Amino acid sequence: MSDEILIDTRGLTTALQRFADERGWNRHHSPRNLVLALVGEVGELAEIFQWLGDDGAAALRDDPARFTHLQEEIADVLLYLTRLAMVTGVDLDQAVRDKMVKNAIKYPAP
Amino acid sequence: MSDEILIDTRGLTTALQRFADERGWNRHHSPRNLVLALVGEVGELAEIFQWLGDDGAAALRDDPARFTHLQEEIADVLLYLTRLAMVTGVDLDQAVRDKMVKNAIKYPAP
Amino acid sequence: MSDEILIDTRGLTTALQRFADERGWNRHHSPRNLVLALVGEVGELAEIFQWLGDDGAAALRDDPARFTHLQEEIADVLLYLTRLAMVTGVDLDQAVRDKMVKNAIKYPAP
Amino acid sequence: MSDEILIDTRGLTTALQRFADERGWNRHHSPRNLVLALVGEVGELAEIFQWLGDDGAAALRDDPARFTHLQEEIADVLLYLTRLAMVTGVDLDQAVRDKMVKNAIKYPAP
Repeated sequence: MSDEILIDTRGLTTALQRFADERGWNRHHSPRNLVLALVGEVGELAEIFQWLGDDGAAALRDDPARFTHLQEEIADVLLYLTRLAMVTGVDLDQAVRDKMVKNAIKYPAP
Repeated sequence: MSDEILIDTRGLTTALQRFADERGWNRHHSPRNLVLALVGEVGELAEIFQWLGDDGAAALRDDPARFTHLQEEIADVLLYLTRLAMVTGVDLDQAVRDKMVKNAIKYPAP
Repeated sequence: MSDEILIDTRGLTTALQRFADERGWNRHHSPRNLVLALVGEVGELAEIFQWLGDDGAAALRDDPARFTHLQEEIADVLLYLTRLAMVTGVDLDQAVRDKMVKNAIKYPAP
Repeated sequence: MSDEILIDTRGLTTALQRFADERGWNRHHSPRNLVLALVGEVGELAEIFQWLGDDGAAALRDDPARFTHLQEEIADVLLYLTRLAMVTGVDLDQAVRDKMVKNAIKYPAP
């Protein structure tokens, strides 16, 4: 892997910080609160897929209402995950870069 | 919110696709498989915080081994979430943009 | 640990089977569908605790509406977990008995 | 539903309380700690199913090592869920009874 940026979240972190600042939410955004909120959103994401079976899940893209719901739940997970990284001081680009290097060693390409 | 990019994952999606291609993993990356794998990683993230209490969680940054573990688990969640978005056709930047607009309406700034 | 029964779910499994039979739900209750449904309910359980902080969580019992909500979400997790055990052929009493023996070896009492 | 007991956890709650007492674990078993621990175990349960596909999941029973693993993870979820009910004061039998009555109203049998 080259040194190119894998994920750039500067726009998002700025927007999320402003959002929390304007609403006085920073005091609610402790690491454990955010982990529990993340779990809540992952639960909503799982619910989309719960009765579909593998074939139904593959066809989700053809159902506009469900697809919009999927977009929203994926976004919610990403928003809380980014916020968790912010308050714990984790650099997402560095984190995924390090992890992919580690994965490449653990699972070498044939 | 302006039209600036909130999150740019082009480098990451390219790297993830190459990683899956080289290992023949695309057939394993169905939406439901990825959701379950995501849940597994969220579980490992939650484990980091399970016995800490709120105070211990706030001090996590001062414990290098635990902080590295936190980085890795956050990365794992992000990798599977990005992969899920890829295989379901969700544009992460569009998804978070739409969701933040919706959140701003739901929770208006005072 | 003696040979006494740790958990007796006979009444519940009978009631759950009848409930599924009467509604034609058995075909929906595949193991992976039930795991995803369980994750959805765990998410709802986590949501109850997400903004409380540790002190607020301890005081939950004094808030009748929230306590009822908690009862319901704990019940939902238990219902899907029991149903998952049923369809995969896991005996819950045997499972917890074996696991507690294993835990007692892993964490010996001082 | 008659007034028969749906789930009897008296043996289990006694064993769990003794286990925690002997190891001085009661102070660790706050509601939020237990919810996060539960999420961790649900993650391990999900991992069993993550790469199986629906067909592989149905065949899990024929693989003794995996089946034992499944028993253990289901047990772990049940142990933490029971412990959570204990520390929050939720009566599991009452909770599932109330929820099944509610479900029967929400989803009437045809």
